[in-house]
Amino acid sequence: MSDAHKLLVLAGDGIGPEVMREVARIVHWMSAHRGLKLEITEELVGAASLAAHGVPIRDEVIELARQSDAVLFGSVGDPAWSHVGFDKRPEVAILKLRKELELFANLRPAKLFDALIDASALKPEVVRGLDLMIVRETVGGIYFGEPRGIETLPDGSRRGINTEVYTTSEIERVARVAFDLARKRDNRVCSVEKCNVMESGLLWKEVVTDIHKREYSDVQLSHMLADNCAMQLVRDPNQFDVIVTGNLFGDILSDLASMLTGSLGMLPSATLGPARADGKRNALYEPIHGSAPDIAGKGIANPLAQILSFAMLLRYSLNRGEDADLIETAVSNVLASGLRTGDIMSPGMARVGTEMMGQAVLREMEKLA
Amino acid sequence: MSDAHKLLVLAGDGIGPEVMREVARIVHWMSAHRGLKLEITEELVGAASLAAHGVPIRDEVIELARQSDAVLFGSVGDPAWSHVGFDKRPEVAILKLRKELELFANLRPAKLFDALIDASALKPEVVRGLDLMIVRETVGGIYFGEPRGIETLPDGSRRGINTEVYTTSEIERVARVAFDLARKRDNRVCSVEKCNVMESGLLWKEVVTDIHKREYSDVQLSHMLADNCAMQLVRDPNQFDVIVTGNLFGDILSDLASMLTGSLGMLPSATLGPARADGKRNALYEPIHGSAPDIAGKGIANPLAQILSFAMLLRYSLNRGEDADLIETAVSNVLASGLRTGDIMSPGMARVGTEMMGQAVLREMEKLA
Ligand SMILES: [Mg+2]
Ligand SMILES: [Mg+2]
Repeated sequence: MSDAHKLLVLAGDGIGPEVMREVARIVHWMSAHRGLKLEITEELVGAASLAAHGVPIRDEVIELARQSDAVLFGSVGDPAWSHVGFDKRPEVAILKLRKELELFANLRPAKLFDALIDASALKPEVVRGLDLMIVRETVGGIYFGEPRGIETLPDGSRRGINTEVYTTSEIERVARVAFDLARKRDNRVCSVEKCNVMESGLLWKEVVTDIHKREYSDVQLSHMLADNCAMQLVRDPNQFDVIVTGNLFGDILSDLASMLTGSLGMLPSATLGPARADGKRNALYEPIHGSAPDIAGKGIANPLAQILSFAMLLRYSLNRGEDADLIETAVSNVLASGLRTGDIMSPGMARVGTEMMGQAVLREMEKLA
Repeated sequence: MSDAHKLLVLAGDGIGPEVMREVARIVHWMSAHRGLKLEITEELVGAASLAAHGVPIRDEVIELARQSDAVLFGSVGDPAWSHVGFDKRPEVAILKLRKELELFANLRPAKLFDALIDASALKPEVVRGLDLMIVRETVGGIYFGEPRGIETLPDGSRRGINTEVYTTSEIERVARVAFDLARKRDNRVCSVEKCNVMESGLLWKEVVTDIHKREYSDVQLSHMLADNCAMQLVRDPNQFDVIVTGNLFGDILSDLASMLTGSLGMLPSATLGPARADGKRNALYEPIHGSAPDIAGKGIANPLAQILSFAMLLRYSLNRGEDADLIETAVSNVLASGLRTGDIMSPGMARVGTEMMGQAVLREMEKLA
């Protein structure tokens, strides 16, 4: 088993375990029929870990994650644990993983399945074929910069302060992720900042321009101001391939891009760490949806974002692009056939539960393979 | 003439003078038929002022602006002056006005005329009836905070820094503008920040909540995170009445909201200063479009954003809401009748120039009055 990829599976809370079960079905089939070799470890995180071990995530689990080739994460969060101290909240599990593994690049694809085009608020002719990727820097920028805080002034009034900081190396490493990604896609990167009014944006633009020249001149690079990017995402989202930007702009623009699809419950994501000694990167894959405690345990959750997160994992951490394609095409065909979970239901379609949706994807994969 | 309102008209460069001429037509008619009393001064700004006086704006003009009840601004910018030193660029005229008059609140309506609904990238059923207003703080926040700059570190790499700062009083005064506006509209304010990750946002939320309780409890107040607001503007923009937010989020969200209409050339804006001793505020009204030097002098520019800027001026600085309604209804009807300038032209409509469009609006006003 030494040539097997080490996979850590953290299903978490709420609908996490249910939707992860549908991924397990696919993993099982791929192991039997596609030569996929995985050495899988499953662990508790979030409220599940709090209940069993008294902490949202154990140090051993973080160490396991560090030594894995990839982490497949479900979702954490449980109303029963929402009023405990900050360090005991289930969400700490994912925050700690991101921090300890230095997961600095968040990849958010906004891809529209043709069968779901009516869910978008945008006109079909504007949004059809949407397939862009936002790479957001996630451990730097204004959400982490010092000094920060609220101070009381001599006259009793107050002042709130946050600091945006970016260094050459922080910008370089996230830019490299974006350029590498673009090479596997349509080979275009658009770098987004506010260099017209912010020095941190000016440095961002200079560093991206410089590394492009030195290492990625085969990739097409453009620059755009963040406010214009928000406009262009609405006006003509299909102009973009890969967008790379800082923490704050990425926070806003990736959510905006997701909403263009109209189906947030469908979207996967990845977060990557620095290159390791073995040439690989720590990487965590998770749906952008939460633990949805209101529908947990009812067998009605949409498993597709979790399944698509696994497809991203295959593509970006295991370099198995064909397997990823197989899953994505199967999902697309199942949706085209009219099957829908409740969250993406529309008139005339057939409503199914979590398990039937998972099985339908697997049957379609069998057909396509 | 002592009961006349003092109006300073700064047509500026490019299409500015052409589209301002159509406003003059309306002013003339309103003076004759609606009892509008204006004491109008016209001055040069931008490239026009550079050519005549060697500066983008003279100190006397700024003083005039300070003593006016309102400033109606056209647009500045001219490619002939784009390569001179920063303080000689035509754009300095508007920057100086904003700074000297302390114009801290930018009002950006995103209003969709039904006749132009097809220009939006959003589905008609999502965007129909859109009528929201974004109030953006414009003299504080991260675009102005200190420390700022790019420094070189000992190892030769660099670090870019910007600082977001907001004080109680800066937040209070822009919140008041938003609440006052809401009372003239649908009486709802949504305050937008990132209080979950930024202390400056936390203070923003606390101060807005506090002033609402003390002075505006009759207005409906809600709070939203900036990334969610970007999503909601696409998903269901009609949920909003007035949005109030800081400089950076306002920069992005106001452009996003404008783009929802699909017709940027139609949109006016206002920028307000602090309350003066006479109870009024300094205020500047201008279209969001630029000087469009490529089509200047051809008589084909769309005058509607300039006309609608004047309508805003009537409503917010002169308290003549009925006159503003008259103009806005006339514009709406003219568009419904099928007249279009080139920038908003669509198949089956009648293409007209600047003057014919202006005259059509005036004829419609005469009919309606
Ligand atoms: Mg976000
Ligand atoms: Mg902007």
